[in-house]
Amino acid sequence: MAKAAKTAITPTRTENYPEWYQQVVRAADLAENSPVRGCMVIKPWGCALWENMQHVLDGMFKATGHKNAYFPLFIPKRFLEKEAEHVEGFAKECAVVTHHRLEAGPDGGLVPAGELEEPLIVRPTSEMIIGDAFSRWIESYRDLPLLINQWANVVRWEMRTRLFLRTSEFLWQEGHTAHATEEEAREHTIRMLNVYADFARDTMAMPVLTGEKTAAERFPGAVKTYCIEGMMQDRKALQAGTSHFLGQNFSKAQDIVYIDENGDRLHAWTTSWGVSTRLIGGLIMTHADDDGLVLPPRLAPVHVVIMPITFKSDEPDKIINYCHKLADDLRVQAFHGRHIEVEIDDRDMRGGEKSWSWVKKGVPVRVEVGPRDMAADSVFVARRDLSPKEKQGIPRSEFIANLTSMLEEIQQGLHDRALSFREENTHTIDSETDFRDFFTSPAGEPTPIHGGFALTHFCGDSELEKKIKDELGVTVRCIPLEGGEPGTCPFTGQPSEQRLVWAKSY
Amino acid sequence: MAKAAKTAITPTRTENYPEWYQQVVRAADLAENSPVRGCMVIKPWGCALWENMQHVLDGMFKATGHKNAYFPLFIPKRFLEKEAEHVEGFAKECAVVTHHRLEAGPDGGLVPAGELEEPLIVRPTSEMIIGDAFSRWIESYRDLPLLINQWANVVRWEMRTRLFLRTSEFLWQEGHTAHATEEEAREHTIRMLNVYADFARDTMAMPVLTGEKTAAERFPGAVKTYCIEGMMQDRKALQAGTSHFLGQNFSKAQDIVYIDENGDRLHAWTTSWGVSTRLIGGLIMTHADDDGLVLPPRLAPVHVVIMPITFKSDEPDKIINYCHKLADDLRVQAFHGRHIEVEIDDRDMRGGEKSWSWVKKGVPVRVEVGPRDMAADSVFVARRDLSPKEKQGIPRSEFIANLTSMLEEIQQGLHDRALSFREENTHTIDSETDFRDFFTSPAGEPTPIHGGFALTHFCGDSELEKKIKDELGVTVRCIPLEGGEPGTCPFTGQPSEQRLVWAKSY
Repeated sequence: MAKAAKTAITPTRTENYPEWYQQVVRAADLAENSPVRGCMVIKPWGCALWENMQHVLDGMFKATGHKNAYFPLFIPKRFLEKEAEHVEGFAKECAVVTHHRLEAGPDGGLVPAGELEEPLIVRPTSEMIIGDAFSRWIESYRDLPLLINQWANVVRWEMRTRLFLRTSEFLWQEGHTAHATEEEAREHTIRMLNVYADFARDTMAMPVLTGEKTAAERFPGAVKTYCIEGMMQDRKALQAGTSHFLGQNFSKAQDIVYIDENGDRLHAWTTSWGVSTRLIGGLIMTHADDDGLVLPPRLAPVHVVIMPITFKSDEPDKIINYCHKLADDLRVQAFHGRHIEVEIDDRDMRGGEKSWSWVKKGVPVRVEVGPRDMAADSVFVARRDLSPKEKQGIPRSEFIANLTSMLEEIQQGLHDRALSFREENTHTIDSETDFRDFFTSPAGEPTPIHGGFALTHFCGDSELEKKIKDELGVTVRCIPLEGGEPGTCPFTGQPSEQRLVWAKSY
Repeated sequence: MAKAAKTAITPTRTENYPEWYQQVVRAADLAENSPVRGCMVIKPWGCALWENMQHVLDGMFKATGHKNAYFPLFIPKRFLEKEAEHVEGFAKECAVVTHHRLEAGPDGGLVPAGELEEPLIVRPTSEMIIGDAFSRWIESYRDLPLLINQWANVVRWEMRTRLFLRTSEFLWQEGHTAHATEEEAREHTIRMLNVYADFARDTMAMPVLTGEKTAAERFPGAVKTYCIEGMMQDRKALQAGTSHFLGQNFSKAQDIVYIDENGDRLHAWTTSWGVSTRLIGGLIMTHADDDGLVLPPRLAPVHVVIMPITFKSDEPDKIINYCHKLADDLRVQAFHGRHIEVEIDDRDMRGGEKSWSWVKKGVPVRVEVGPRDMAADSVFVARRDLSPKEKQGIPRSEFIANLTSMLEEIQQGLHDRALSFREENTHTIDSETDFRDFFTSPAGEPTPIHGGFALTHFCGDSELEKKIKDELGVTVRCIPLEGGEPGTCPFTGQPSEQRLVWAKSY
């Protein structure tokens, strides 16, 4: 208990990782559970974070030629039924609209009325409704490639939910593209996978592996599914984004046809890809610590919080004015396409409590200005990536001049720390015994140790893959795109084309 | 028929206004009907327009102290039932989710399964779900005012729909605020109404009247509803945004309570306000003409389209390079917080057809560059607010230097034209006969004439108001905020406090 008192979040990561996660979300005021089963309320701090992610991603999608559009929330049941694997994958967990009004029931309360001739499904993903539009929009090869993105809410009925990581309703973007040739569609699938990897690394400071999913983990209806996978601080993997090569499965199911240069009618080749508010869960589990959220500066809704320390002063207004002037001098600066966002917190509360509230929210730089700082024309600066006790007096002008490089250093430092952590916890494993040991928590640990990433050969047997999942809770996270040397499967002794990445996962 | 050939849109506004509207939406490629009853697909050009509106409005909301959050799509039935008038207003037209999966039915197709214990309503508006959060978030007077905005999709089951103007699903923002005092909440209601009016005037170039709704047109559950009303080119009114003072109706129904400075538990005072993709319908009907859409530059997804005319040239690449250089010189300029957006259209198609495609999309400035223009270092410029035939050769440097003032002139010109139109069609009417004549279309007109805005006294009798609506299709659009002189109701001879604005409406 003595230890717990030293951190802002209890329990700590090592004490109880899942509970630590919930407490970080709560302490940073990111989101909360709602009274609607499985649906969350995204609170202002979480919403600002998502908007910053959206802004950067949207720019990346536009730079790769996509345009945004918006398609209906509802999908008629007959549309979903068009692609057999697709409906099989989503029918078990979807919200079904069956009526279009409420009317007074026999016991006074309201009951559903106006039954629909055909039930409508609240979109779990939009292949079937966007494909329908594509079948109308595409006539000739001149209409290809068609590159569309949608920002939307989707619903997948989840029985066990966790804020940001798994919720019945979530916000996402879904890209949908159609191409004249198989090669171009395959290239585009990989291009968008790389956009996600670049975003994760450069903007979220979250290193990810890119690779292909095995058949067992493929998107329902896809020919190939690719993913980005990050390692969380409990050494479990998080699938943070997927990109699907759909082949002609959906274009055949939905009649997405074009006339080529020779006048022949051909089915288009399609792709789809998406990232969601789950990214916020990944961000938390990559960077947050036992004092709460830690935000990479490129995504932080507030870069710098300035706290005037006025309780010892005869002239509190002077200090507050000094802080406002400082804020003005910072706000004119730019950092990765945004102005520096500064918040002045002059709430009437204890200084320690106030400062901790910003630690827990993950703001990259905290500044305190008291009477002596003002007299010396300096500021007292704390960085969220360092210990809360490491505060430093810096001349005001120097702080202003160096702020953007300090933010850049924080951004890079968070990335490098996460990358080192992943590298330390990634092991080449060549025997079944070592594999089992790696993923089995030692007796006496207070919280389960999830091993990490195992780079292990595999013969590709789906039955065996399922057995390993059932026994150890370990899955193939991805087949790395860069390939690797052939070898021998430690489970069967059969030949293996390359090592795969295995881990426990969210 | 000879006449129709001269315009890009047939029929023209005077020939068939409702059909003209549909054709403008189609010709500008803004949106289309989907196979899902009453739901539209917002195509890239329409989506870009909405995003530009969002961007400006979002800045205005943040400047007035609001933060964005996101709340669940679904509202449990018992929540909706908490406020009697509210549920009465929305129960007749809502999408009801009753099941959470599909399973194979007796005849092979899928049928809804997993019936919910309590039906969920797809939000028609979010007072009941946001109020629930407010009841948890608000504890003391220090938590007030609470100023929240949400960007979301909502569903109201509509039997007769029209693209943008009335659809079952639409995109909107809904502001929800809670205040400690009645006075502050009333002031905030009017503040946000004025934000809408400023946005309509300054950004959409759409002049609007602001006023209060009569009881008959009030939001279900509100104490007072205020609105902005624009006059469309068929002289009908469009309600383009509303702001509601909710009093304590919702805070009492939902237990939104705070502890004041004296330790007393008091109900908060709440407001809500919203604008939607309906604004795009208003934009079209305010500015579009018989050649298609006309976009105010502050909202245009593309400010300038450059069309290289290469078919007569031996060196087409030189012309295309010249155009790219011109685009670069324009793009570095800013116009109302955005960079100048330039599109180079070098599609291989007839020049006339190409130019008309941009006329129909409403792009403010079209530029053509042929071999002779390039030789003279000049460009051939056409403005969307002038006749398609008025094209003008301008030296390149002069065009670059004057572009932003040209855009400003177009923006202002569109506003002034719309304002003049409204003023010409707004009449002070003091007798019942004149009132009836004003709203009765003369015999022999090819399309109904809808009169315009009548400024007419009224005693306030709700029965009479309903009778006028039933007989003439005319309603009180608003009770102007600025008030007016008292007078006599021409229908009853009873006293009237001020003239009201009457019109037919969408």
